[in-house]
Amino acid sequence: MNVMADRPRRLESYIGGVWTRGANEGVPLLDAATGVPVALIDSTGIDFQSALAYGRERAGPALRRMSFHERAAMLKALAQALMERKEEFYALSTATGATRADSWIDIEGGIGTLFSYASKGKRELPNTRVLVDGEVEALSRDNSFSAQHILTPLEGVAVHINAFNFPCWGMLEKLAPTLLAGMPAIVKPASQTAYLAELMVRRIVEAGLLPEGAIQLVCGSLGDLLDHVDGQDVVTFTGSAAIGRKLKMHSAIVENSVRFTMEADSLNAAILGLDAGPASEEFELFVKEVAREMTAKAGQKCTAIRRVIAPRAHCDALVAALGERLGKIALGNPADENVRMGPLASLGQRDEVRARIRDLTAEAEIVAGDPLRPQVVSGDAEAGAFLNPVLLYCGKPDAAQAVHDVEAFGPVGTVMPYDTAEEAVALVKRGRGSLVTSLFTNDPRIAEELVLGMAPFHGRVLIGNRISAKTSTGHGSPLPGLVHGGPGRAGGGEEMGGMRGIKHYMQRTAVQGAPGLLSAVTGRWVEGAPARTEAGHPFRKSLAELRIGDQLVTATRTVTIEDIEHFADFTGDTFYAHMDEEAAGANPFFDGRVAHGYLIVSLAAGLFVDPDPGPVLANYGVDKLRFLTPVYPGDALEVRLTCKEINPRVNADYGEVRWDCRVSNQTGAIVAQYDVLTLVAKTTG
Amino acid sequence: MNVMADRPRRLESYIGGVWTRGANEGVPLLDAATGVPVALIDSTGIDFQSALAYGRERAGPALRRMSFHERAAMLKALAQALMERKEEFYALSTATGATRADSWIDIEGGIGTLFSYASKGKRELPNTRVLVDGEVEALSRDNSFSAQHILTPLEGVAVHINAFNFPCWGMLEKLAPTLLAGMPAIVKPASQTAYLAELMVRRIVEAGLLPEGAIQLVCGSLGDLLDHVDGQDVVTFTGSAAIGRKLKMHSAIVENSVRFTMEADSLNAAILGLDAGPASEEFELFVKEVAREMTAKAGQKCTAIRRVIAPRAHCDALVAALGERLGKIALGNPADENVRMGPLASLGQRDEVRARIRDLTAEAEIVAGDPLRPQVVSGDAEAGAFLNPVLLYCGKPDAAQAVHDVEAFGPVGTVMPYDTAEEAVALVKRGRGSLVTSLFTNDPRIAEELVLGMAPFHGRVLIGNRISAKTSTGHGSPLPGLVHGGPGRAGGGEEMGGMRGIKHYMQRTAVQGAPGLLSAVTGRWVEGAPARTEAGHPFRKSLAELRIGDQLVTATRTVTIEDIEHFADFTGDTFYAHMDEEAAGANPFFDGRVAHGYLIVSLAAGLFVDPDPGPVLANYGVDKLRFLTPVYPGDALEVRLTCKEINPRVNADYGEVRWDCRVSNQTGAIVAQYDVLTLVAKTTG
Repeated sequence: MNVMADRPRRLESYIGGVWTRGANEGVPLLDAATGVPVALIDSTGIDFQSALAYGRERAGPALRRMSFHERAAMLKALAQALMERKEEFYALSTATGATRADSWIDIEGGIGTLFSYASKGKRELPNTRVLVDGEVEALSRDNSFSAQHILTPLEGVAVHINAFNFPCWGMLEKLAPTLLAGMPAIVKPASQTAYLAELMVRRIVEAGLLPEGAIQLVCGSLGDLLDHVDGQDVVTFTGSAAIGRKLKMHSAIVENSVRFTMEADSLNAAILGLDAGPASEEFELFVKEVAREMTAKAGQKCTAIRRVIAPRAHCDALVAALGERLGKIALGNPADENVRMGPLASLGQRDEVRARIRDLTAEAEIVAGDPLRPQVVSGDAEAGAFLNPVLLYCGKPDAAQAVHDVEAFGPVGTVMPYDTAEEAVALVKRGRGSLVTSLFTNDPRIAEELVLGMAPFHGRVLIGNRISAKTSTGHGSPLPGLVHGGPGRAGGGEEMGGMRGIKHYMQRTAVQGAPGLLSAVTGRWVEGAPARTEAGHPFRKSLAELRIGDQLVTATRTVTIEDIEHFADFTGDTFYAHMDEEAAGANPFFDGRVAHGYLIVSLAAGLFVDPDPGPVLANYGVDKLRFLTPVYPGDALEVRLTCKEINPRVNADYGEVRWDCRVSNQTGAIVAQYDVLTLVAKTTG
Repeated sequence: MNVMADRPRRLESYIGGVWTRGANEGVPLLDAATGVPVALIDSTGIDFQSALAYGRERAGPALRRMSFHERAAMLKALAQALMERKEEFYALSTATGATRADSWIDIEGGIGTLFSYASKGKRELPNTRVLVDGEVEALSRDNSFSAQHILTPLEGVAVHINAFNFPCWGMLEKLAPTLLAGMPAIVKPASQTAYLAELMVRRIVEAGLLPEGAIQLVCGSLGDLLDHVDGQDVVTFTGSAAIGRKLKMHSAIVENSVRFTMEADSLNAAILGLDAGPASEEFELFVKEVAREMTAKAGQKCTAIRRVIAPRAHCDALVAALGERLGKIALGNPADENVRMGPLASLGQRDEVRARIRDLTAEAEIVAGDPLRPQVVSGDAEAGAFLNPVLLYCGKPDAAQAVHDVEAFGPVGTVMPYDTAEEAVALVKRGRGSLVTSLFTNDPRIAEELVLGMAPFHGRVLIGNRISAKTSTGHGSPLPGLVHGGPGRAGGGEEMGGMRGIKHYMQRTAVQGAPGLLSAVTGRWVEGAPARTEAGHPFRKSLAELRIGDQLVTATRTVTIEDIEHFADFTGDTFYAHMDEEAAGANPFFDGRVAHGYLIVSLAAGLFVDPDPGPVLANYGVDKLRFLTPVYPGDALEVRLTCKEINPRVNADYGEVRWDCRVSNQTGAIVAQYDVLTLVAKTTG
């Protein structure tokens, strides 16, 4: 397949393991800069019900058989394979109107999201198939009945309906958590730029790294697909609010309570802090950021800055500085390396944006940029969807409506003044829920007041100042580790957010039962579950031999006053509660001198450690250590150590083992409780 | 007000701080057992838009000014106040058809949920207004740009539309997380039993413990209320799927992406394990549980068992045992203490359930209980909505449809056979998503296979066996600490789940910025934020003086081989990596003998502890201790201790302080990193 062929190519859908053309010739998709047809798109005649069944029956079980670390490794390999082909994607991306910098966000930003999920998945998830969620809930005093929440992959298909602006990133940022969770996907890119998504899916399929059916692609209409979704499927939508709402009310989605995530347009704002006058570094950073976020991807970003909220006293200076900066941005053919802003995605989009600018001019005046006569440095200003950046000013933003409500999905922003911090917050909230707002200030009190004031209306808030000037990832960039989405008008969805994102594709289930049965389900030892003490010291077992529930109960050691004094002297920790009977007794928590917490855990290790070389390689940490009962001189300590969780690594000859550790005194009271974390060899020898 | 008046009382709504009658006389609500009118209900003429505004403007800010611990204390006081009045609720509850045992679930179960949220809130949440969610994400190598997710209360009103079966519990289980999150509520009980909810709300209002407007009540129709909800409001619905779906598609809910939680009917199942033959303890437990869950609250529970899935070989024995047990359940006037099952909520409900039984008989035969001629031990079988427990048997459940789909909301269940574990899972899944299924088995492998097999279709799974027989809370009881809700047909909602539940009423926001500004927003010190080292040892500061960012950098201490040997000898921890140069060098992580991890933290304490009595009272624990670099003899350790988080307790003269602790070596490499947890006095002296 030569993707750069002169004659428009008929895009294909990848359904049921086969590349398939629609029954009709298809609708032409035009190059944004030249108006020349790039591809034809049609999905008529595709059997969508079978596509869903194929994903559910073929790919779902295969994905669910893999562990989280295996899926993470798969994502990493996929990211590497795509990165090797990146120039091919860049070449085709130009047709969408994207400059090299715009394409970088889409292509390398998207592949970077795969890398990031691969790495976080390996680091933050266990190497299991079931994800344990939160702590065990003890539901009985005698530990005969407990509960544990678990997360398991949904057994359906995730249907991802994506927007035209980021055909690669928009696909990959959803695919990464979907696949890591263990769920297959059907991707439906927006038609306008589907040729780029189609090319990337071809490379994904060719790489042969995913189980067959883990990704299917629909180029063209989804037909009757949504009629067939059920409660185990997930539908995500990124695009216009109008279409999103319609899909959300689709009868099969409502009838079956299908999870529906929507990420729609939003009137994102940027606020200049009251402290950030024209002479400040923050003012300069603000001007740069607003200009960048108005014009990157020609303003066709869900996160682009639409409302520029500034102290009344600084508005004139701001309009002047922004107008000057926007005026210098070279508009033209995106293939031209001198160009900083390419055309909109299509002539239709340009007509749409111009109409929205007209709506805005009812309340705001244009203070920079002619919306009608594009000034291009290259390319054909008539054939391409070129539009100058347009800055408006609205002097009475409280009384205005359109500036808070009309999204011109292009290089368009409106400056509006405020006087007090409360007013700035009130103006931001007029957007009725946004993906992101940024605030430029160097004053911690302003940051606190404004950020907390607007947080309930936002999925993300960025603070810019001189300290983060060089390292900030910027207003417009959703990051894999942070949630992307916003309440209300922004659609109410939440994507990514690191490992939070995979939970959209999993079911949370509370499992209750006797600890022994609960352990069988979760693969984790639970207090009250049977333990095996007869088979020797568990530190002598490799991962091949070790089982959860393997337990050691140690001999006892009596703590003497000499031990305490000696430890104090040796370590230098001469805190009065250990050294001075009277002062210790005056402490509200102690009746007299007590042993150091660190002495307790040190003696505990002395009791449970097995000295000779063996499968246990190192103690790499301790979690949730709590000192529950004071240890007084004369108390006899005993340790119970139980193998709680075993995590073999995929690419190493060892794994992590978590041990439940309880130190008790001669009355049986628990004096300290914690998890000991060790690295243990997979085999002995 | 005499709630037991002979003439039916006109219920009132509590709106805008005033008890208000509807404009009309109202519709009569009848006693379930006697058919005598209990109350009249009507909400005509109420200004619902103002009610929403009142909650948002009056109560929201007041609730948000309180900290989590203050709200938790408020819930506890409210629970105590209601518990003191419980007999009044029991007296009125009889009219709903509830026996004393049924009412206990509703009244004391509901109040218990308040207690539980109060206690968990105090234990598991910080005493702050902003909830930090997850770890800090470092977004730059030099710690000049980081991110932190926070949760803040939504600024709208939670509209709770509740079901008729649990007028108290259904209200309180939603109110508890709502109020704890910091959000006001408007409660709309189902009309049929609204008189009991109205009585409880009267007592809540009279107690004067909540900020005015934190709870409003609508007795009767919600009128146009939903037309006025926006993206900061939340709507929850418990009831029939048909009404729930209609509400979910309400234009204002869809247009504004209003969070909508639905908990609808579900064809919950109980499975008898293949191991649990008629002679087993699990068989007997199963029979008891199924009979109990079919008849508690006359089967009018969202969690009631509708499908009884049993090994084919044991079905006859099961039907016989269940039939016998159900036949012994005394049906009659719920006020009669010999009665075990009262009437359905209304004659209309009985007609409905009889119609559904007729639907079921197309595929299943009645094997116990006459649906038409109720056998009562007391009460008027004609005037009251009495119905015998009805057991059906469906021999071909794979081929059947109605038994997996028709919910007879009364004391009705269908037994169906299976042969293999996979078949049992497949049958359970035919319910297309349920609130809960229980499995009775004593075999860990059966538990693992079946629970993991059905988990994606359930919000909760209960395993019953001989171990948990006495302590199990039972199939039918949602618990405050566990999620309640189920996917697909069950509505797709999730309620409670402990502190998970409050997040439904809060917005998650990723905040990015320079660490200093991020700390100002979150109230937590973040790595890279400014620190103050000049003001003396931070352990000499009470909570009144201490600030986040207060920091101590200690002197250094060189670790000698003698220290290591001495520590080994003293504690008994003679692990080879500390004692044997050659063996240690053969360990993949070490180049030779290393210091014990516990020695490092002990010496660190010696470096940072301030010995004299002072505001720091105790070290109560350590979190997330990780050993990052081996410490070899000759390495010089230095500690940096920074005040990270301050949590003053509400009812004590001290609070918790979390310290960020980093131990580094002479090259600056971090060798250990952890949080030290201390109790610190509020004031000095």
